[in-house]
Amino acid sequence: MTELPRTYKACVYDEPGKISTKVVDLDMPEPGPGEVLINLTHSGVCHSDLGIMTNRWVSLPAPTQPGQVGGHEGIGHIVKMGAATESSAVKVGDRVGIKWLSGICGSCPPCLSGHDGQCFGQKISGYYTPGTFQQYVVGPANYVTPVPEGLDSAAVAPMLCAGVTVYSALRKSGAKSGDWIALLGAGGGLGHLAVQIAARGMGMRVIGIDAGNKKDLVLECGAEVFIDHTQGQAEEEVKKATGGLGAQAVLVLTAANAAYASGMGLLRYGGTLVVVGLPEGEMKPIATAFPSIIVAKALNIVGVAVGDRRDAIETLAFAERGVVKTHFRTAKMEELTAVFEEMESQKLQGRVVLDLR
Amino acid sequence: MTELPRTYKACVYDEPGKISTKVVDLDMPEPGPGEVLINLTHSGVCHSDLGIMTNRWVSLPAPTQPGQVGGHEGIGHIVKMGAATESSAVKVGDRVGIKWLSGICGSCPPCLSGHDGQCFGQKISGYYTPGTFQQYVVGPANYVTPVPEGLDSAAVAPMLCAGVTVYSALRKSGAKSGDWIALLGAGGGLGHLAVQIAARGMGMRVIGIDAGNKKDLVLECGAEVFIDHTQGQAEEEVKKATGGLGAQAVLVLTAANAAYASGMGLLRYGGTLVVVGLPEGEMKPIATAFPSIIVAKALNIVGVAVGDRRDAIETLAFAERGVVKTHFRTAKMEELTAVFEEMESQKLQGRVVLDLR
Amino acid sequence: MTELPRTYKACVYDEPGKISTKVVDLDMPEPGPGEVLINLTHSGVCHSDLGIMTNRWVSLPAPTQPGQVGGHEGIGHIVKMGAATESSAVKVGDRVGIKWLSGICGSCPPCLSGHDGQCFGQKISGYYTPGTFQQYVVGPANYVTPVPEGLDSAAVAPMLCAGVTVYSALRKSGAKSGDWIALLGAGGGLGHLAVQIAARGMGMRVIGIDAGNKKDLVLECGAEVFIDHTQGQAEEEVKKATGGLGAQAVLVLTAANAAYASGMGLLRYGGTLVVVGLPEGEMKPIATAFPSIIVAKALNIVGVAVGDRRDAIETLAFAERGVVKTHFRTAKMEELTAVFEEMESQKLQGRVVLDLR
Amino acid sequence: MTELPRTYKACVYDEPGKISTKVVDLDMPEPGPGEVLINLTHSGVCHSDLGIMTNRWVSLPAPTQPGQVGGHEGIGHIVKMGAATESSAVKVGDRVGIKWLSGICGSCPPCLSGHDGQCFGQKISGYYTPGTFQQYVVGPANYVTPVPEGLDSAAVAPMLCAGVTVYSALRKSGAKSGDWIALLGAGGGLGHLAVQIAARGMGMRVIGIDAGNKKDLVLECGAEVFIDHTQGQAEEEVKKATGGLGAQAVLVLTAANAAYASGMGLLRYGGTLVVVGLPEGEMKPIATAFPSIIVAKALNIVGVAVGDRRDAIETLAFAERGVVKTHFRTAKMEELTAVFEEMESQKLQGRVVLDLR
Repeated sequence: MTELPRTYKACVYDEPGKISTKVVDLDMPEPGPGEVLINLTHSGVCHSDLGIMTNRWVSLPAPTQPGQVGGHEGIGHIVKMGAATESSAVKVGDRVGIKWLSGICGSCPPCLSGHDGQCFGQKISGYYTPGTFQQYVVGPANYVTPVPEGLDSAAVAPMLCAGVTVYSALRKSGAKSGDWIALLGAGGGLGHLAVQIAARGMGMRVIGIDAGNKKDLVLECGAEVFIDHTQGQAEEEVKKATGGLGAQAVLVLTAANAAYASGMGLLRYGGTLVVVGLPEGEMKPIATAFPSIIVAKALNIVGVAVGDRRDAIETLAFAERGVVKTHFRTAKMEELTAVFEEMESQKLQGRVVLDLR
Repeated sequence: MTELPRTYKACVYDEPGKISTKVVDLDMPEPGPGEVLINLTHSGVCHSDLGIMTNRWVSLPAPTQPGQVGGHEGIGHIVKMGAATESSAVKVGDRVGIKWLSGICGSCPPCLSGHDGQCFGQKISGYYTPGTFQQYVVGPANYVTPVPEGLDSAAVAPMLCAGVTVYSALRKSGAKSGDWIALLGAGGGLGHLAVQIAARGMGMRVIGIDAGNKKDLVLECGAEVFIDHTQGQAEEEVKKATGGLGAQAVLVLTAANAAYASGMGLLRYGGTLVVVGLPEGEMKPIATAFPSIIVAKALNIVGVAVGDRRDAIETLAFAERGVVKTHFRTAKMEELTAVFEEMESQKLQGRVVLDLR
Repeated sequence: MTELPRTYKACVYDEPGKISTKVVDLDMPEPGPGEVLINLTHSGVCHSDLGIMTNRWVSLPAPTQPGQVGGHEGIGHIVKMGAATESSAVKVGDRVGIKWLSGICGSCPPCLSGHDGQCFGQKISGYYTPGTFQQYVVGPANYVTPVPEGLDSAAVAPMLCAGVTVYSALRKSGAKSGDWIALLGAGGGLGHLAVQIAARGMGMRVIGIDAGNKKDLVLECGAEVFIDHTQGQAEEEVKKATGGLGAQAVLVLTAANAAYASGMGLLRYGGTLVVVGLPEGEMKPIATAFPSIIVAKALNIVGVAVGDRRDAIETLAFAERGVVKTHFRTAKMEELTAVFEEMESQKLQGRVVLDLR
Repeated sequence: MTELPRTYKACVYDEPGKISTKVVDLDMPEPGPGEVLINLTHSGVCHSDLGIMTNRWVSLPAPTQPGQVGGHEGIGHIVKMGAATESSAVKVGDRVGIKWLSGICGSCPPCLSGHDGQCFGQKISGYYTPGTFQQYVVGPANYVTPVPEGLDSAAVAPMLCAGVTVYSALRKSGAKSGDWIALLGAGGGLGHLAVQIAARGMGMRVIGIDAGNKKDLVLECGAEVFIDHTQGQAEEEVKKATGGLGAQAVLVLTAANAAYASGMGLLRYGGTLVVVGLPEGEMKPIATAFPSIIVAKALNIVGVAVGDRRDAIETLAFAERGVVKTHFRTAKMEELTAVFEEMESQKLQGRVVLDLR
C-alpha cells in the first residue's frame, strides 16, 4: 500500500452566509472503529450545498460553521480500514460513494423500522460532518455505497443524490409497471433522472411536465407525453393522455408551491402525490390538500426524503445497465465558488462534478 | 311465501332544503334482474341524511328531489329474488343490510381496482336511489351485506355506516397490532366505534382525543389514554404516551378543520394521517400539510370514504363476536322529522334507529 | 343493426375422450339478464382444450359431455345486450374477449377477497359452459375483457390465456423492476410471453431456462441470460449471473416435475417459487420443498392459477404498446381436429388461432 | 461504577456430542469497538441448545467445540461500553437481552433487504460465539434488545427466542385481525406463546391443534377452538369452525413431518402455510406440497426462521402489557446438565431459566 500523505486539499466554506469557498490544506484523518478512509476523486455539486453554505435553508437546526467542508455526492476508493470493520461488506481498494445521509446509528426506533432518513443520530455529509469537497474523507464501513465496475466515477457522483432520491420516490409512489405517472419538473436535475428510471427502468408510462424549453430533453429521456405547464392545460392534457382517469401517481420534483397546488388535480381515484421538492421561504400547506377531495377520490400524499443504502445500490445498478444517465461537466476545486455563483444566477446547465485529483 | 302487500309505508323528503319528512304509501316495487326485494325492519338515521335532505352538502352534484326516500343503514329480510340471481350468495329469507354504497357497476376501472367508493356508476342509498326509510326496498343481489345470526337488527343498522367506515379507515391506516393510534373525535358517532374496533378487535393501542365530557365513554370503549383536546396539550400528551415518538396513525373522525390542523403534529416519522370526517362550509386545505414537514418526517396522508362489501362483512363479524357495540334508541317513522330537528339542534345523544315495522 | 342469423357454426367435441371435433349448426342464443351476445371472429387453441376434450385432466370434477363447444381464448364484437346491462362498461359494437374464467358470481367469499379463480360459482369457457370454438357466444357483461383498438384480433386471442396467466404470475412473484427472475420453460407457450412481459414491460432482469434449441427465441424475447437446462448446471449458472445470490423469483412454466424440484435451488434468501405449470399424471409434492431449507433461506412458494379481469386488461395494454407479441398461425374450424392431433404429437410450433369467420 | 471482577463463572460444553456441561471460571472480556459488556442475570435453556451441544443438528455447518459457552436467551445489565458506541441506543445500566441472532454485519445484501436471519456474517449466540450460560457476555451495541421496565428478567428470557420467533411467524402469515389461524403444536413451547400473541395481541381467531392433554392450556391461552389431532378429524373440524372455508393461515410449530403434511389441507383459498418447526432426521419434502393443489387454491408457503430486532422489541412490548406470559421454573448453573437430561428424556414441563447470579 502506498503511504498516505500527511495533508491534503479540501474546499471549505470560509464565510457561511455568503457564496464563498476556499481551498485549504487539512491533516489526514484516521478512520475510527467501524470507519473507512476514502480517497475521493469526484464530488457532485448540488443545490442543497448552496443552501447549507448560505444558511438560507431555514429548516436546518443550526447555522453552518466557518471551515465546514461541504459536499454530499462523493466517489473514491477505500485506502484504509478502521478497527472492527472485518465483517463489513467493503475492503481496501473498493470504490465507494458517500451520499447526503452519510451514516446512521442503526439502532434507534426509526432505524429499526427502515426509516434511515429519520434516524435520530444521522450524519449529513457536508453539514456538521465533513463532506466530499475534499480529497479524503472518513465514512462508516457499513453505510458507504459500493460502486459497480464499469461506471465512470464522475458520472456516478450526481446519481448518489438526485438519482437515489427519485428512485426512492418512484418506489414509494405506489405506481407499478404499466401505470401512468406524471412528473412535475420533469426536465430538472431530479426530473430528468426520474423520467429515465421510471420509463426505462421500472416500466412506467411517463407524462413529463415542465416549461416548454425542456420538451426535447424530457422526451429523449423516455417520456411518452410532454406537457408545457405554462400553457395552463395540464389537468386536461393529463386526463386526455390517460383515458380520462388521471395519473396513478404524481411526483412533485420542483420547489414551486404552484406545482403542489396543481399536482392533486392530476391524480386518478386512489392515486398518490409524492412530495419530494421543498418549497423555499415561509412554509405553506399544499393549497389543494382538501379533506373532501382526498376522501372523495381516496387520494394519498406521501413524503420522500432521502433514499437508503438499498435505494442507492439499486439506483447504481440501473446506471450500470445504462438505464439512466446524467448530464454533467467537470470543474476543479478552485472553481467551486464560481460554480456556486453560476448556480445562484440560475445560469447553470446540468450538473457540475468536481474533479478532486 | 306470504303474499306481499300492494302498498307499503315510506318516509320521504317532501320539501328538500328544509327539515321535513312525511310518511306516505308507495306501490310495492318489483326486483329487476340481479336484484332482490327486502322487507326492511330497521334503518339508522345518520347525519349525512340530514345533509342530503337539507341540500347543505355542497359536494353533492345535484339537489335532492321532493319525494326522495332517504336513509342508508337498512336491515331486513329478502322476500323476493329478481331474475338472474341464481348464482348470488343470498336467497329468500336471508337477513341482509343496505349501506351508503348500495350498488356498484362492477366493471368500471375503479371497480376493477377495488375502489368501490369511486365506481363511476355507484348508487347511493337515499340520494337519487330510494333509501331505507321505508318498509320495502330493492337492492343488488351481489352487493347487499349478509347479516350474521345472533345480532339484533336494530343494533346492527348503524354499524353498516359508521362501523364500516371506521373499520375501513383503521385497515388503511397502516397501523398494526401493538401500534399506537390517535383518534380525533374519539367520543363521537364514528369515534366510539373506532376505539372499540381498534383496541378490542385489531390489537392497537388507542389514544382517544375529544372534549373532556367524553372521557368516560372513550375509556370504557377501550382507549388506554384519553386526552382532552380543549386543554391544548394534545401534542405533548401524545408524545408522552408514546415514548416521545408520536402515534403511528391519526384518524380524523370529526368535521373540524382544527382537528386536521392538529392531527399532523401527533404523528411519528413514517406515520399516516387518515382523512375521514368532512369539514363543512368552504373547502380549506389541511392547514399543516407542509411539504417540508411531510418530507422531513416521511409522513403520509390518506383519504378513506366508504367501506366496501368485505369491510362490511368483517365489521359485522366483529359485532357478532361482541367486540364492538353501538349506543342507540329506536323511534317510529312518524318521529323522523323530530329526530332530524333534535340532530340539527345538536341535542341528539347516540344514534337513533327507526323501527319500520 | 344487421339482423342476426338464426343458426351459426360451432365446433363440438363429438366423442369426448378421443381427439375428435365436428362442425355443427347451432341455434342462435339469446343473452340473458346481465349478459352480452358476442360475434366471435377468432379463438386460440390451447393445450388445456386438449385435456378437456380427452378427459385426461384428472383434476377436473366431471367428464366432458358430447356436444361441448370447447375453447377459451375468444375475440369478437358485441352484437346484442341482455337486460340489466345498462350500467356495464361495454356496449354493442365493442370488441371484447372471453377467457378461461368466463364469469364469476361476484359475491362469494373468494370473490369478495379478490380470488376470482377460486369463485365458488365460476364458469369455465369450454367446459360445461359453451366455449369459443363457435361464431357466437354469450358472456357476462361485467366480465368480458375490452380489447383496445389497434390490436389484431387473431394476435390477441392467445394473449387472453397464456399472456394473462404469466402476467398474473409475474405480478405475484414479489419481484420488482431491476430484480433477477428465472423462468423455467422460457421458450414455451407461456414462457416466451413471460420473458417479454417481464423484461420489456416490468423492468425485470430475466434468466431464461429451457432446452438449447430455444436459446435464440428466448434471447430475442428479451432475456439477458439463457441457460440450457439439459447441461445440468442451471444452479451454478444462475448464481454466476446474479452475483452469487440466486434469483429473487423463479416461475415454473412447464409441466415437468423436474422443473419444480430444480426451481427451489435457484432462489436467493427471501425468494419466491411461483407455481404455474401443472404436472400431469399422479400428484407428487415439490420434491425439494424441505422445511429446513425453506426456513433457513426464508423462502416462499406461491400458486397462481388464472388472472382476473384487471390482469387481462393490463396484459392487453402491454400488447397494445407492442411490449409483447405472440407467434401464431391461423386455421379454419374444419381443421381443428388436425390441429389437436398435431398438438398431441408434439409437432405443433407456436399457437394456432381459429379464424371463425 | 463498581469495579468488575477479573474472572466470572460460565457453563461450557466440555464434551460436545454428549450431554455434559461444566461450570468454569473465565477471564472478564473487554468490549471491543461497537460492543457492550453485559452482566447477565438469567438465561433460558432452549431445545436448540441441546441440539448444538450434542451435535445432532445436522444442518449446522461445523461441530461444536469443547469449551463452547452455550445459551441464547440472556438478560442482564450493561456494565461497560466499548469504543464507538456513543451513537447507539443503549448505555451503561440499561437492561438488555441477547438472542439467537446475537449480531449481524449490517451491510451484506440480506441485511440491506431486511433479512437479518440470512446475514452472511451473522453471529449465533452459543454456537461459535460465546453464549448466555455465563455471568458476563459481550454483544453488539446496536443489536442487543432493550428490555422494558416492569418485566421480570427471568420471565423475559424465553420470550427472546420462542416469543420472537412466533411473533415473526404470525406477522409473516398474512393473517390479519379477525382472520382464523390454525396452530399445529399449539400447546408446545412455541405454540402456547403463539396462541396468546395471536389471540390477545393481534386480534386473530385461533384454532389450537395438539394432543388432547394440551386442551386446557391451549384454551386458557386464548384459543377459540381446540382440536385434538389424535382424533384424525382436524380438517373437518377446521372447516366446521371456519364456515366451511378453512383457515387463512396455518403455523407449523412442531417438528413432526406429519404436521406439515396435514397443514396444507387446513387452508382456505389464498391461505398461507407458515413453516417454523424443523423436522429432525433426513430431509423430506412437505408431503402435500402438490403443484396442482397450490395452483387450484392459490396457496402460499412461507419460511420463517428467527425474528429481527424489531420483532424482539415488539414481542417484549406485548409481554410488558401482559398480553403474553410464559411458564418456567428457575435453576442454578450447576443444574444445567440435569436440565438437559430432563429435556432429553422429554420429561421437562415448561421452560427452565438459569439464575446466573
